[in-house]
Amino acid sequence: MHLLSIQILLSLLCVVNAQRFVRFTSTDGKEYYGDAILPAHTTDASLSKSARVITGDILGDFTITNQVKQIKTLLAPLPNERVRTVRCVGFNYVAHSEEAGVNIPQWPILFYKPWTALNTPSDPIPVTAGYQTQGNFTSEMDYETELVIIMKKKAFNISDDEALDHVLGYSVGHDVSHRGWQIDRGGQPQPQYSMGKGADGWAPWGPAIVSTNIIEDPQTLNLWTKVNGVMMQNDTTANMIFGVKHLVSFFSMGTTLLPGDVIFTGTPSGVQLGKTDPKWLVNGDVVEVGLENVGTCTNKIKYT
Amino acid sequence: MHLLSIQILLSLLCVVNAQRFVRFTSTDGKEYYGDAILPAHTTDASLSKSARVITGDILGDFTITNQVKQIKTLLAPLPNERVRTVRCVGFNYVAHSEEAGVNIPQWPILFYKPWTALNTPSDPIPVTAGYQTQGNFTSEMDYETELVIIMKKKAFNISDDEALDHVLGYSVGHDVSHRGWQIDRGGQPQPQYSMGKGADGWAPWGPAIVSTNIIEDPQTLNLWTKVNGVMMQNDTTANMIFGVKHLVSFFSMGTTLLPGDVIFTGTPSGVQLGKTDPKWLVNGDVVEVGLENVGTCTNKIKYT
Repeated sequence: MHLLSIQILLSLLCVVNAQRFVRFTSTDGKEYYGDAILPAHTTDASLSKSARVITGDILGDFTITNQVKQIKTLLAPLPNERVRTVRCVGFNYVAHSEEAGVNIPQWPILFYKPWTALNTPSDPIPVTAGYQTQGNFTSEMDYETELVIIMKKKAFNISDDEALDHVLGYSVGHDVSHRGWQIDRGGQPQPQYSMGKGADGWAPWGPAIVSTNIIEDPQTLNLWTKVNGVMMQNDTTANMIFGVKHLVSFFSMGTTLLPGDVIFTGTPSGVQLGKTDPKWLVNGDVVEVGLENVGTCTNKIKYT
Repeated sequence: MHLLSIQILLSLLCVVNAQRFVRFTSTDGKEYYGDAILPAHTTDASLSKSARVITGDILGDFTITNQVKQIKTLLAPLPNERVRTVRCVGFNYVAHSEEAGVNIPQWPILFYKPWTALNTPSDPIPVTAGYQTQGNFTSEMDYETELVIIMKKKAFNISDDEALDHVLGYSVGHDVSHRGWQIDRGGQPQPQYSMGKGADGWAPWGPAIVSTNIIEDPQTLNLWTKVNGVMMQNDTTANMIFGVKHLVSFFSMGTTLLPGDVIFTGTPSGVQLGKTDPKWLVNGDVVEVGLENVGTCTNKIKYT
């Protein structure tokens, strides 16, 4: 076999092995993309201590090398600039719609966050004065754990069946939400989403993008939230009203989804919204959002 | 006076003269930024036949040169990639809120379009099958003319008084809206904006960015819509509920607005929404949106 053929074969094998895409700073102070090496007995990429360095573009052609680097800090799996558009879905779990007292949606409810809302799996979630309690205005900060889809290829008017060919993989995301601005002060004639969900850093995601090679069926995954270590949400993506395939195809209706675009797919029940005695998040609270076979993001609420 | 001083002085004079930023293809087939040279007796930059070429970055340091190029086709004033975030405002004119049967907002209603919705001042507005009439589902395509703010400098938690220092200038924009997806099928528990407003090409803007040097007060401008030559909307930005300064400061609450970000500031009355016998836009309709001292965008509805 020619040397070139061997190289191509090795390269193909490496791509097939692509698993948990992470972006990280290493002990040498440099930034890398890598394929996370998991510690034994866990699939939480946030616990990875090292990764095989990836060269090239994880949204295009890339190679997983044999060079292993220590992980000092996990960053968001893509820099904000590569994530051009952040789509989010409202009320995509029946029990969450019920707890919020709203009807079950007949079509996916789409809203957007600006890409400046994206955050790392571990940095604080800043809450500036306008979102803190002021006079009669209570700071109704709430958590929402969600499966996040990361697009790999352009999609335009595609079908449900074609959807997964355009997907790179999945992360877990935190759709940080201020119910006061989202609903009470969201604007007339009806609540809206944008002012209550778009502040800087209000969309932690990561700790890895776990490829569709590993997660062949995204509708079988446990997802949860812990606040200061206490379980608050605990459900499975099997309960999504609109699954990953349909969300991708629906949002591609007349609309180009681009490589790097992410879709937050909605949160299950267990949020504070709708509770008679809600415990809103306050300064110093630590929120862990988790997704089976992907990992966790753990971010502290920080008044700034 | 030294030659260098003269050059600096000339350069300063040119920057002060900066007026109507356009981006265009010229008769030489190349693309340029320029300062539009207006024909006599009009301030509609879409009628400009030539422009002084601008070098550098209109969002940063730039020079208006003495090189004049013919304008073959006006493009959007910035390429989509430079416009990172498209903010839009709902129900920002009293008469429009009234015609739509909604309360007057107490706070600005924010929503987003994806940047892929941006379009040129003259290209067709594509309407794909999912937005056309199908069975019982009427294609409720509507027009909305709006003043558009273009950000020049980062803004974060700024005051109303600081707002205009962060603004490059103003364009006119068309917030193309499908009321069926926005409202009827927008999703439960309430209407939303995103599916009805975010398709590719549903945000024509231009024809120029007219600088804050020229438009010192953005709250005094006539704006209008013509459909197939017939006037449908005709109002003034004096009737905006929340003016330019407040929108910029409000949206900067805990949120970084970036150079190139645009804000569509809401439409006056005269849209089809709320009419007892609405004439929705259909294939071939030509929509002109206009803003005094800025110009017009004229785009055809095109079923694709």
